[in-house]
Amino acid sequence: MDLWLIENNTAGYSVNWKVVKTLFERKTPFQHLQVLETLEFGRTMVLDGAIQVTEKDEFIYHEMIAHIPLFSHQNPREVLVIGGGDGATVREILRHPGTTVDLVEIDQAVLDASREYFPGLACGLDDQRTRVIVADGIHYLESCTKTYDVVIIDASDPVGPAVGLFDEAFYRNVYRVLKADGIMVTQSESPFFNYQLLREINAILRKIFPLVKVYLTCVPSYIAGFWSFTAASKRYDPADPRRFPADFGECKYYTQSVHRAAFELPACIANLLRTKDCKGFGSK
Amino acid sequence: MDLWLIENNTAGYSVNWKVVKTLFERKTPFQHLQVLETLEFGRTMVLDGAIQVTEKDEFIYHEMIAHIPLFSHQNPREVLVIGGGDGATVREILRHPGTTVDLVEIDQAVLDASREYFPGLACGLDDQRTRVIVADGIHYLESCTKTYDVVIIDASDPVGPAVGLFDEAFYRNVYRVLKADGIMVTQSESPFFNYQLLREINAILRKIFPLVKVYLTCVPSYIAGFWSFTAASKRYDPADPRRFPADFGECKYYTQSVHRAAFELPACIANLLRTKDCKGFGSK
Repeated sequence: MDLWLIENNTAGYSVNWKVVKTLFERKTPFQHLQVLETLEFGRTMVLDGAIQVTEKDEFIYHEMIAHIPLFSHQNPREVLVIGGGDGATVREILRHPGTTVDLVEIDQAVLDASREYFPGLACGLDDQRTRVIVADGIHYLESCTKTYDVVIIDASDPVGPAVGLFDEAFYRNVYRVLKADGIMVTQSESPFFNYQLLREINAILRKIFPLVKVYLTCVPSYIAGFWSFTAASKRYDPADPRRFPADFGECKYYTQSVHRAAFELPACIANLLRTKDCKGFGSK
Repeated sequence: MDLWLIENNTAGYSVNWKVVKTLFERKTPFQHLQVLETLEFGRTMVLDGAIQVTEKDEFIYHEMIAHIPLFSHQNPREVLVIGGGDGATVREILRHPGTTVDLVEIDQAVLDASREYFPGLACGLDDQRTRVIVADGIHYLESCTKTYDVVIIDASDPVGPAVGLFDEAFYRNVYRVLKADGIMVTQSESPFFNYQLLREINAILRKIFPLVKVYLTCVPSYIAGFWSFTAASKRYDPADPRRFPADFGECKYYTQSVHRAAFELPACIANLLRTKDCKGFGSK
């Protein structure tokens, strides 16, 4: 049987992934979860029909969401991850000596599936420096009294359970739990297909944080590749990789030069973040 | 009728484009040519089933293939474009004062279709500073006695008529027609899906040119976004935007910072260009 996952990204654009084997499939209380072996990208986790991670290119997203804030911070120790139940963001954080991580994932089934099918990603989940909290990240932050050096919002697309992870009340709670020199990063979707959301996230964060900067990368398994992150900081410039310990080891994607380069925005993206009326990606 | 273009990129990955209308379709002596109005990317030109340009994101590719070599050169005047019959690379080149362009396109039908359906791209083709030569770029270069400051190889994928535009004999002729401070750029495909070709192009060019550098961008309408170019130069560093005239006008994508940033390669791509045995994108 010829099995394909058709990922319906928008009304006029979709991607077909040849599936070698369905490894796992379940309706969880929150979403439809699949683990598929794909021909081109290896093993992948799919939530509500959208690719979340693939074995072949997950390192790009996870290195860029973790190492940018952690190397911009002078001394990151306590780190909070909202979402990211696959564990790969935690894996990258724990490469930084002296860190401990609280991971707040809403869906126990995501944690279980990652431990079972993605040991290379989930390896950080059961590390003694990690505390896994199965809860809604929004509720967790509302009642959180602990403070953090770095908060990473490793959310899925803003539909389904992640929808509240992109609004002002949530970001105000992130600000509140960050220490005086704290820094946060959120994934902020495709600057091409979802530029309105990127603009909104930036407008909200600028009301709250003194320093807000967007950075870009390309994740082949995400819709058409182009991907954005938004960093918001109380003190440190997120575009400045202020530290890189000699003994850190090699990354597959991240370098200090890549860190700086990711913040050099194409004219049209700088523009759509700056101007009030914007017809979208590519408009001047 | 619900009309979709299915772009079969690889055995396990394909993209579906919702087509609003087929504007033109023809078997030329060289390829199957279509002009389609798509829902998400506007008007597109398709050759042998592969998207070549879309109205919505063509500026990324064309600004990056043209302005990187032209701003790296001290005084670019005579420019040769091989391929690029849509005319958009010429459009960007002619923004540089004092330039003239020879465009060598193998397929008259591509020129005609661009003039008819893509006036915003084709505008440079009938400029008095442009000479359009309908010929095979390989043959043109073999017998070419003119010399150039910049050569841009704006080829389609290395199947069909473009296959000879990626081999050593061709690049040696490019070297021969470049002046003593000349610089060339070729598009060099996806570093993710086609990293072997990127490696080969680099290995060949390093045998011929003293200075060879890869730069990257993301073109959403090309397979999974991630895209590479390779620049080879006799004197100037292609990563150094040495000039930017105050009166040049705004680009949609290119800035001097974006120019420099595009050459900051992720660790795995720097590595696959450096090492002999490489298991591909993402391998250390």
